[in-house]
Amino acid sequence: MSEITSYLAGAIRAIPDYPKPGIIFRDITTLLGNPEAFRVAVDELVRPYADLAVDQIAGIEARGFILGGALAHQLSSGFVPIRKKGKLPHQTVRMAYSLEYGTDEMEMHVDAVKPGDKVILCDDLIATGGTAEGAVKLLRQLGAEVVSACFVIDLPELGGRKKLESLGVEVRTLVAFEGH
Amino acid sequence: MSEITSYLAGAIRAIPDYPKPGIIFRDITTLLGNPEAFRVAVDELVRPYADLAVDQIAGIEARGFILGGALAHQLSSGFVPIRKKGKLPHQTVRMAYSLEYGTDEMEMHVDAVKPGDKVILCDDLIATGGTAEGAVKLLRQLGAEVVSACFVIDLPELGGRKKLESLGVEVRTLVAFEGH
Repeated sequence: MSEITSYLAGAIRAIPDYPKPGIIFRDITTLLGNPEAFRVAVDELVRPYADLAVDQIAGIEARGFILGGALAHQLSSGFVPIRKKGKLPHQTVRMAYSLEYGTDEMEMHVDAVKPGDKVILCDDLIATGGTAEGAVKLLRQLGAEVVSACFVIDLPELGGRKKLESLGVEVRTLVAFEGH
Repeated sequence: MSEITSYLAGAIRAIPDYPKPGIIFRDITTLLGNPEAFRVAVDELVRPYADLAVDQIAGIEARGFILGGALAHQLSSGFVPIRKKGKLPHQTVRMAYSLEYGTDEMEMHVDAVKPGDKVILCDDLIATGGTAEGAVKLLRQLGAEVVSACFVIDLPELGGRKKLESLGVEVRTLVAFEGH
């Protein structure tokens, strides 16, 4: 682990047995609330994209909005929200995605991205990748090019990174934790 | 109206009769998705705080996360989320707040801010101010000093700004719309 990786890993709180026994929940709020760690995390997420002309950062509700907003401002791109259904006021397109039990739907405004827009997907964490996969499909349905997807935390054993890579999406993460 | 104010106002989409007849919904997603307008909005929100030593930006779920994340990074402060109940994994404190019909509860982690922390509250819009009032009370309950509250959109006829000012909170907004 690099120095930055272990620094960021140390800023994330582990909550054992949440939301159920045997699961260690990775709580990013302690990183966000630490000014230095938050700055480092955003700067590290932004760095590989600095020379890319990115049209939009697409943030996944709700924690993806926090990092996505900072990324969009740093990269001078726009920000588009990918929301739980029923939250957006204008005409939307919907996409079903897999949860641990069953499915749900996410939405974007039909005009949130234009065909050909270069978009980076952003969320705090990738686990099974069900939500991110739905987001990639939704962005592609609107004609956007998903040039990368970035997350602070990767739980590689849950396979989300591989799922996105199998869709042809570059994945960047800052910290990986074993287990789930 | 200044040039910047009218520019930002023009970047916000008006949706008539949403969520119900007679209401004009101010849709900030068109501003967020416009790289130039998003950059200007964040820079204008940040400007008055540039010389202030701010410990935390407190963003209200969910749209307050987008602007709040960008503000926190620009001001080199931390970010703390104020969430709908049941979303935060660690021990929380709750505060009831008024909605148009009835009340709901918002939550923060008990250790999200430290006593004496200087905090700026951030959301996309202030209307009746019920949510922002609850957020101010919650932050003060944890011992934080709410040095300012900022919003892109003000609906002054709904009285939210006055409500916050009567609590002794400085309020900054970028664009005001008549009606609600």
